[in-house]
Amino acid sequence: MSTTRQLQVLQSGVEPCCPPLTERPFTAVEAERAAAMFKALGDPVRLRLFTAVASHENGEACVCDISDVGVSQPTVSHHLKKLKEAGLLTSERRGTWVFYRVEPSVLAAMSHLFAIPAT
Amino acid sequence: MSTTRQLQVLQSGVEPCCPPLTERPFTAVEAERAAAMFKALGDPVRLRLFTAVASHENGEACVCDISDVGVSQPTVSHHLKKLKEAGLLTSERRGTWVFYRVEPSVLAAMSHLFAIPAT
Repeated sequence: MSTTRQLQVLQSGVEPCCPPLTERPFTAVEAERAAAMFKALGDPVRLRLFTAVASHENGEACVCDISDVGVSQPTVSHHLKKLKEAGLLTSERRGTWVFYRVEPSVLAAMSHLFAIPAT
Repeated sequence: MSTTRQLQVLQSGVEPCCPPLTERPFTAVEAERAAAMFKALGDPVRLRLFTAVASHENGEACVCDISDVGVSQPTVSHHLKKLKEAGLLTSERRGTWVFYRVEPSVLAAMSHLFAIPAT
């Protein structure tokens, strides 16, 4: 992603938790916030669910779309809840289904963490 | 980071484990590999140590440089070992000290995961 595009996304509403990892040592508060997001992605099943939502049409999916990861439906729901609590997914009920979505601003904030300083 | 710069870094030797998170659902193998890296960063103390190394002069630091995170030296060493095992840090002994370093290719591979598709 270009720096320009990244800035556009960042300016569209997200408040990044932290500077790039290479900029300076994180404070305890910054480390708590960023580590919570990494921890949420640090489980293979959760990561498969996250990529299933993120890559689904229009960046959103209901549980019915993404349950093909070899675990039970309650386990899927449990992991989706954890991803929501970490701020990585949002959800919205429509009729009988809950739809999950990855906000582009979240990806931009995460991408910002891995920005490499210009050489 | 621009796409050009990212590709240059990627082409300089790293083999990214996985496609961007938004490209398609990860396979079980891809999820295992990427989740291990996220899990390693999913601890506040480890993340503080990682940013301390990553932001230190020339992208490398010895334990003596980065022990200011309020935990004991053995705990620091334990966390640095975990970061090494996850492939996020490399180390090299010089005299009495072990120096830790973050390879730019690792940051590029992680950044690649959060690339947002062009709109």
